[in-house]
Amino acid sequence: MDAYTIYNKPENDVNLLHWGHFSAPDAFFALKIGQKTVAFVSELEYGRCKQESTFDEVVLLSEVRKKLALTDSNCFWPHFFEYLSKTYGIQRFFIPNNFPAFIYKQLIEHPQFTVDFDEKFFKTQRAIKTETEIAEIRKACALTAATLEHAKAILKACETRSEQLYWEGEILTSERLRFLMESYCHEHGGKADGTIVACGQEAANPHCEGQGALKPHQLIVMDFFPCLQSSHYYGDMTRTIMVGTPSKEQKRMYDCVWECQKHLIAQVRPGVSTKSLMAFAVKFFEDSGFGLKRTENGCEGFIHSVGHGIGLDLHEYPSVGNQEIVLETGMVITIEPGLYYKNIGGVRIEDDVLVTKNGCEVLTHCGYELSL
Amino acid sequence: MDAYTIYNKPENDVNLLHWGHFSAPDAFFALKIGQKTVAFVSELEYGRCKQESTFDEVVLLSEVRKKLALTDSNCFWPHFFEYLSKTYGIQRFFIPNNFPAFIYKQLIEHPQFTVDFDEKFFKTQRAIKTETEIAEIRKACALTAATLEHAKAILKACETRSEQLYWEGEILTSERLRFLMESYCHEHGGKADGTIVACGQEAANPHCEGQGALKPHQLIVMDFFPCLQSSHYYGDMTRTIMVGTPSKEQKRMYDCVWECQKHLIAQVRPGVSTKSLMAFAVKFFEDSGFGLKRTENGCEGFIHSVGHGIGLDLHEYPSVGNQEIVLETGMVITIEPGLYYKNIGGVRIEDDVLVTKNGCEVLTHCGYELSL
Repeated sequence: MDAYTIYNKPENDVNLLHWGHFSAPDAFFALKIGQKTVAFVSELEYGRCKQESTFDEVVLLSEVRKKLALTDSNCFWPHFFEYLSKTYGIQRFFIPNNFPAFIYKQLIEHPQFTVDFDEKFFKTQRAIKTETEIAEIRKACALTAATLEHAKAILKACETRSEQLYWEGEILTSERLRFLMESYCHEHGGKADGTIVACGQEAANPHCEGQGALKPHQLIVMDFFPCLQSSHYYGDMTRTIMVGTPSKEQKRMYDCVWECQKHLIAQVRPGVSTKSLMAFAVKFFEDSGFGLKRTENGCEGFIHSVGHGIGLDLHEYPSVGNQEIVLETGMVITIEPGLYYKNIGGVRIEDDVLVTKNGCEVLTHCGYELSL
Repeated sequence: MDAYTIYNKPENDVNLLHWGHFSAPDAFFALKIGQKTVAFVSELEYGRCKQESTFDEVVLLSEVRKKLALTDSNCFWPHFFEYLSKTYGIQRFFIPNNFPAFIYKQLIEHPQFTVDFDEKFFKTQRAIKTETEIAEIRKACALTAATLEHAKAILKACETRSEQLYWEGEILTSERLRFLMESYCHEHGGKADGTIVACGQEAANPHCEGQGALKPHQLIVMDFFPCLQSSHYYGDMTRTIMVGTPSKEQKRMYDCVWECQKHLIAQVRPGVSTKSLMAFAVKFFEDSGFGLKRTENGCEGFIHSVGHGIGLDLHEYPSVGNQEIVLETGMVITIEPGLYYKNIGGVRIEDDVLVTKNGCEVLTHCGYELSL
């Protein structure tokens, strides 16, 4: 038998969530042998893991340690793997790229069993979503969209006085709007962190979270990516909006990104390669006069990829970039073209789409108006 | 020169936060050479990393790739390490145990440079906190305590009707109280997740988050561990409380844990070994008639360790368990004895203490009354 093998914290390798729907603050060991999943946990997690998780078998690690009766704890891992080989009839262990090097080193020094990398399995096993998973992702996407609508309503309700936005009598800042969004989401069953509310030049850095007063007549990028508290499935959306009147330049940039996104979404279907989507976006922006420019402090223009898979992890297989990956029915990906210029700021528009038999279905519903 | 080497996401290896105070959603590569720290990041993060981080040097990874001019991307890592050796005069690379096995495998196949594990460095480099760090941990602990006070005030304001707790006219559940705590914390600059509010038999599993209606006359374990949004430093506290009247058994269990915690805190000082604290707790509980019992579904009694270090990570070096680690001035650890019985539930009392020259200082201030 082959066994797929993980040693990690569930939040650092969500394959553990995929196998066992079990969260724990510390790393634990798990196997997938055929369709069977087995977790090896400490005293502290054993009862809860047996009760709450969907692992087919839950083993108390200290019991195994006792059976092995090792005197030197340094050789635990090779002996443990030998024990696993015998107990479960495993010939080959497959590990992900991020498997701890320290354990790997000990294993390869013992030739009695085979340990090989199979990153592809660990990356791709979650790529095609089941019906249950799609239902969870729909919930996450609905919550994401509702939160962005909430944020837009707040911005719309703002008063503009002497080039400042006031909300309920106070200057509205990135920090405040981020807090209001994350609280709204939390109250409705999600959890969110690192929400981007970046205004003006700040938004020229795609991952800048944003700080200080939000300004009228500036592009405000809101990138929101919560997961559900119950099941840990993610939604991920970006809208770029403005309170006030866009300049010609801002408007042209916005329209170009939106146009590009519509074209990209229209191309998503089974059989299409992610590389072709990326190539389309690069060419579309170049042809529109927004090609990549290299400056002293990095690049300007379209400086990231088109998108990424989404599910139990915020960024998962497939990435929608320069790699050649063929889209399949049941994959869920983001489509998020964007443009970034130091003197203007940023525009990004992001939706999550489910690849369907004949094309794709947009899961995130929220208007695209630039100006509120 | 020696270089300490990390390839990870900052949230999966907070040593990256320690070196650069820079957060990013994807893994990146960083080195510490002597006192100098260097980060190698993508186009997407370059501008922000240069602006926001405290890395001494920020390098655009694509520039290095270009210099290397590799045709086969599979051999990137060995060539990259060779480049690092030459550029920074590095003879030996040290990696943590959780370094990705996939990169490690490629490196050890190239004998032109040395790659060794030095888990001790990566684990212990954050153990002795600087004045700045202690100030941040104080803030985190104050927020943790304030949130627990907030939770207690809610429980105190509850009405008891037909064996249910009502708050503002509605039955108070674990989920609701967790939400109220996390929201309060969020509003005050923290972020919290997985907060434990476990009532009655649920709390017999130390990591059970808790669900459903909270009950009077039952032990309610509230374990709260937020970090600061700004600096990512953690606080970690547990209080066990009850709305109503404890039984003799519940009271005896509570008093025993509290007594044990007071003794443990009184023993914390530089030079004391963590193992001796653990041994004290085990013996104290045994002598009080609360020794470890093995049942079919795991163990009952004192089933975890005394505590753990806390800082940029929730669980960090030193663990306060069966390992022999000598406490030093400037360490911050939790002291959290607990007792767990299937038919009664759980009691855990946890505070964070700073090891000082002559003893320790409790950083988390919140009353110890069992009954509200």
